[in-house]
Amino acid sequence: MTSDSAAVNALDLSHFSLTRVLNEDTHSKTVYLLGTLPYSASNGGETRTEPALLIVERLHFTTAEANQLVAKRLTETGSTGQNDVYHWLRGRLRGYASDAADDEWDVKLTVVVPATEAHIRKYTRQERRMIRETPDIYQRVVLPYVEHLPKSRIHWLYNILDGIGEREHVLFNDPDPAHGFMLLPDSKWDKRTMESLYLLCLCHDRTIRSLRDLRAKHLPLLTNIRRQVGQVTSAKYGVPANQLRLFFHYQPSYYHLHVHVTHIQNTQLGGMTVGQAYLLDDVIDMLQLMDDYFQKCTLTYALGQDHPLYAALEEAGATADP
Amino acid sequence: MTSDSAAVNALDLSHFSLTRVLNEDTHSKTVYLLGTLPYSASNGGETRTEPALLIVERLHFTTAEANQLVAKRLTETGSTGQNDVYHWLRGRLRGYASDAADDEWDVKLTVVVPATEAHIRKYTRQERRMIRETPDIYQRVVLPYVEHLPKSRIHWLYNILDGIGEREHVLFNDPDPAHGFMLLPDSKWDKRTMESLYLLCLCHDRTIRSLRDLRAKHLPLLTNIRRQVGQVTSAKYGVPANQLRLFFHYQPSYYHLHVHVTHIQNTQLGGMTVGQAYLLDDVIDMLQLMDDYFQKCTLTYALGQDHPLYAALEEAGATADP
Repeated sequence: MTSDSAAVNALDLSHFSLTRVLNEDTHSKTVYLLGTLPYSASNGGETRTEPALLIVERLHFTTAEANQLVAKRLTETGSTGQNDVYHWLRGRLRGYASDAADDEWDVKLTVVVPATEAHIRKYTRQERRMIRETPDIYQRVVLPYVEHLPKSRIHWLYNILDGIGEREHVLFNDPDPAHGFMLLPDSKWDKRTMESLYLLCLCHDRTIRSLRDLRAKHLPLLTNIRRQVGQVTSAKYGVPANQLRLFFHYQPSYYHLHVHVTHIQNTQLGGMTVGQAYLLDDVIDMLQLMDDYFQKCTLTYALGQDHPLYAALEEAGATADP
Repeated sequence: MTSDSAAVNALDLSHFSLTRVLNEDTHSKTVYLLGTLPYSASNGGETRTEPALLIVERLHFTTAEANQLVAKRLTETGSTGQNDVYHWLRGRLRGYASDAADDEWDVKLTVVVPATEAHIRKYTRQERRMIRETPDIYQRVVLPYVEHLPKSRIHWLYNILDGIGEREHVLFNDPDPAHGFMLLPDSKWDKRTMESLYLLCLCHDRTIRSLRDLRAKHLPLLTNIRRQVGQVTSAKYGVPANQLRLFFHYQPSYYHLHVHVTHIQNTQLGGMTVGQAYLLDDVIDMLQLMDDYFQKCTLTYALGQDHPLYAALEEAGATADP
């Protein structure tokens, strides 16, 4: 393994010597390694030990693999938890070498059984289309839909605001009925990994259904959220305001104004895509420039074809070219 | 394997019978399978064959694994390509069962050798901070930086616009000096998979450096791009306008106005995060509402601490609480 042996192939990775791990992406299962490698330039020069970057990314399952995954590949599983119809396991694929440590597993398994139609729909591939929601389409299509949603859909949220539900989860409460809010951890957060921090901020004001209702008069509420959320995360988690993304969703999953709070390094979340997410900072800035911006603007966003609003929006021409 | 055998464990996955693949996520290496599973409710009822969702996600490398990946785990590699200092290979980890097909590989490997400091910086974990770029900070910090960038940085782009470089790649050209643009495939696209379609639209107007220069007078250019790009992708790829995301970046990687064009199903791209990406539709709508919106607004975005503008922005107070 001398670095200047002429017999060394320019890319014989068995000669790779690790210096350090530069980065990793837990979402795409990729590690970025820095090391050295004996290398001779293609013009036939001397072989020298050069700095080398090695990026290793796990491959996706092939179609053939996906079809035979359980029948032919899964050799061993172990349970890691259960809640209602959800079961979590980990598993090993194919044969694994005898020197593999006992705590090394190949895949994470989630089983939903018995699975309902709603579960199946949730995990089935969805076609999306870009929607251009003009103020007129909001008034004719979206607002009537929102107004006819059963109030029972947000009972869980009113329970929290009333101090009945999830009291043990509340991180902070400013009880002011106009400018106050409650801050709680989102269920997507494990409450330990700071870089995946995800909190939810629920306004006490029950009259604001979404972005579309916001006016300049709500600026004290919005700037209060911006100021106090940063103070809470700074004191509780050592994460100051300039390491947070605060944003709204449109369409939201429920029509009571709430703000998503995530760590700036948490870049792989689906819900931060432009069009779906609106930064609290941008919303504040727009309202400062124009009181009725959200009543006058056209909101453009991607929507799945099984969203309850999709058919009516398409019918109203929101998916057509402008 | 009868479905009502009392001996069947509620979650013995060896009894999972696949109905169909519901979805897959090639980025996170996850497959969503629908099937059936013998299942007895926890209250001890009869075992019945129930619909079951099975989600299988490849696990990330453990820290111990990352450190020993090449030394202990990589058993076999095969080259798939090379370009300059970039080498691509695929590899197998640990022992694989003798019945594994020859075309099944575990990891994709990218080697950069010899790696420069710039390569290493690019792949090293970066700390980010939220930047609030007020109009004043733009004038004092960003604009002088942009004006002093060497023109040579965008020679490659002027070569394309002048018809000298990459002529074979140009998909469409509207030569109008004020409202025209060129459309090309982005290097990130494989030119085959429609769902990862990624095109780049370069304006002929050389006076517009970024979003910050846009005024209502540019609306004919912007609406021309919106109209014609959809027509080209529809005719060439069967992808109509309502299946496209058209957006700008801020900060952009070069200061000559360009529009990113991606497929709506391509949801895992890093560059579409709110704050970094601005939908062409939103920009058009804002300029229709307010001629000087982009001169008056505060732009909020996450910036890596090794961005050439970072130190000056921090010095100017752009990372501080408002």
